[in-house]
Amino acid sequence: MNNTTGHAHDATAWLQLARRLQKQQLQQLSQLGELASQLSALVHMLQCERGASNIYLCSGGLLYTAECRAGGALVDERLALFYASLERARAVAGSALCWRIARAVDELAQLPALRAQIGRRQIAAEAATEQFSRVIRHLLNIAPQLNDSIDDPPVAGRMVALYSFMQGKELVGQERALGALGFTRGEFSDSLRQQLVDRIDGQQPCFDSFQALGSPATVQLFRTQCHAGLDIEQLRRIACTRQPAADGGETALRWFWPANPTA
Amino acid sequence: MNNTTGHAHDATAWLQLARRLQKQQLQQLSQLGELASQLSALVHMLQCERGASNIYLCSGGLLYTAECRAGGALVDERLALFYASLERARAVAGSALCWRIARAVDELAQLPALRAQIGRRQIAAEAATEQFSRVIRHLLNIAPQLNDSIDDPPVAGRMVALYSFMQGKELVGQERALGALGFTRGEFSDSLRQQLVDRIDGQQPCFDSFQALGSPATVQLFRTQCHAGLDIEQLRRIACTRQPAADGGETALRWFWPANPTA
Repeated sequence: MNNTTGHAHDATAWLQLARRLQKQQLQQLSQLGELASQLSALVHMLQCERGASNIYLCSGGLLYTAECRAGGALVDERLALFYASLERARAVAGSALCWRIARAVDELAQLPALRAQIGRRQIAAEAATEQFSRVIRHLLNIAPQLNDSIDDPPVAGRMVALYSFMQGKELVGQERALGALGFTRGEFSDSLRQQLVDRIDGQQPCFDSFQALGSPATVQLFRTQCHAGLDIEQLRRIACTRQPAADGGETALRWFWPANPTA
Repeated sequence: MNNTTGHAHDATAWLQLARRLQKQQLQQLSQLGELASQLSALVHMLQCERGASNIYLCSGGLLYTAECRAGGALVDERLALFYASLERARAVAGSALCWRIARAVDELAQLPALRAQIGRRQIAAEAATEQFSRVIRHLLNIAPQLNDSIDDPPVAGRMVALYSFMQGKELVGQERALGALGFTRGEFSDSLRQQLVDRIDGQQPCFDSFQALGSPATVQLFRTQCHAGLDIEQLRRIACTRQPAADGGETALRWFWPANPTA
């Protein structure tokens, strides 16, 4: 609300108000931009924790015990920053954004219970991965709504680029989790294989949109650093066409930490 | 700004904020809707004053002396309501809307000087019409910006319908003013004729867009009441194809007040 005391027929007062609102809008923009960064960092950490928990559960608790604990701690660190950023964005959020934040915050509240189940291995790897993915999905749903209050087309375009990248990266993350599941088990069911293929196919449109709207420097970085390497393509072929060798999780780790990781 | 004291990780607080913002948005919507109505009524009165002043000046001060004065008084009445509505909308206006309001308010401030010139017949009819049209143009420029803060697609669509209708109606008004000029003078120059044809051609796209987005009842009213009648089409043909008879302004008045006026 603008408590301006100028009169309605005073053109100068309207111009001053316009300038003040424009300045306010830039501040809002910077707060929403910061929230977008925090969101993206939190999702990244959740993707890591999801992957570590997946390997831990698939290996029957033999692998990645420490990584699970570390992953959880890193998520909690990011979570505190994310909540602080949400608190600052509260004053500039529109109603649709608030609905999505409420939904995501509600999902985030389930994390401690999920971790307790994972620690006691009282949940199947697929179910745990599904729960992490649901939290991430609701966090990602916040991103497009950040554009609601942005009427600067170049900035709005960069926000869409970020959102597209986050979506593509999440599909990469899901592909990794599904692959880890199959390689650790030494078996890819038809359904698992289909899910894997869907995740691989879905990535391209997201990264196309990112490359169309992202800043030249970021797009350049993506082109040189983030393409699936030879290692990944070989493992993708194995996962999608034949049953891998039972090797006590060795291929799973190679799948999870190839020479050129994307996410 | 929302001074909510709830915490960032409290989903219920976010839901409550979302509902409060939604309610605020409905109030804003109603204020912007009221401003749109006042804007449309003010433009209508300015169109009437423009027409009356035009006939007054073209007839060398013989016709429409009283109508000019009455037209000015009706505009001033509407102007007071418009300013009051602007004052109420100040708290919900965005920066782009404020810029346009400033521009229009600045133009409105020139009205008294214009009327003084018209009263003393110190300005040519075409120049006076042009000045009224500029004021109206800047008022109409406010309308599309009202949609900035509206994220309800049906309401936004109705706003576009209103704006399209106002644009079409202004072209009708300009056509009337140009026709009155020619008929009162008993002569249509090539340039005047071209301007007339442009105004007639421009109306259709505006009214098409209005009919596509307006409420069924309003569109129905438009279809039954607002089409150019036989009278107007005959006079349009005369204006666009041959020189009218010199009849001391009789045809000008028939042009201005046909059986079925559109604006």
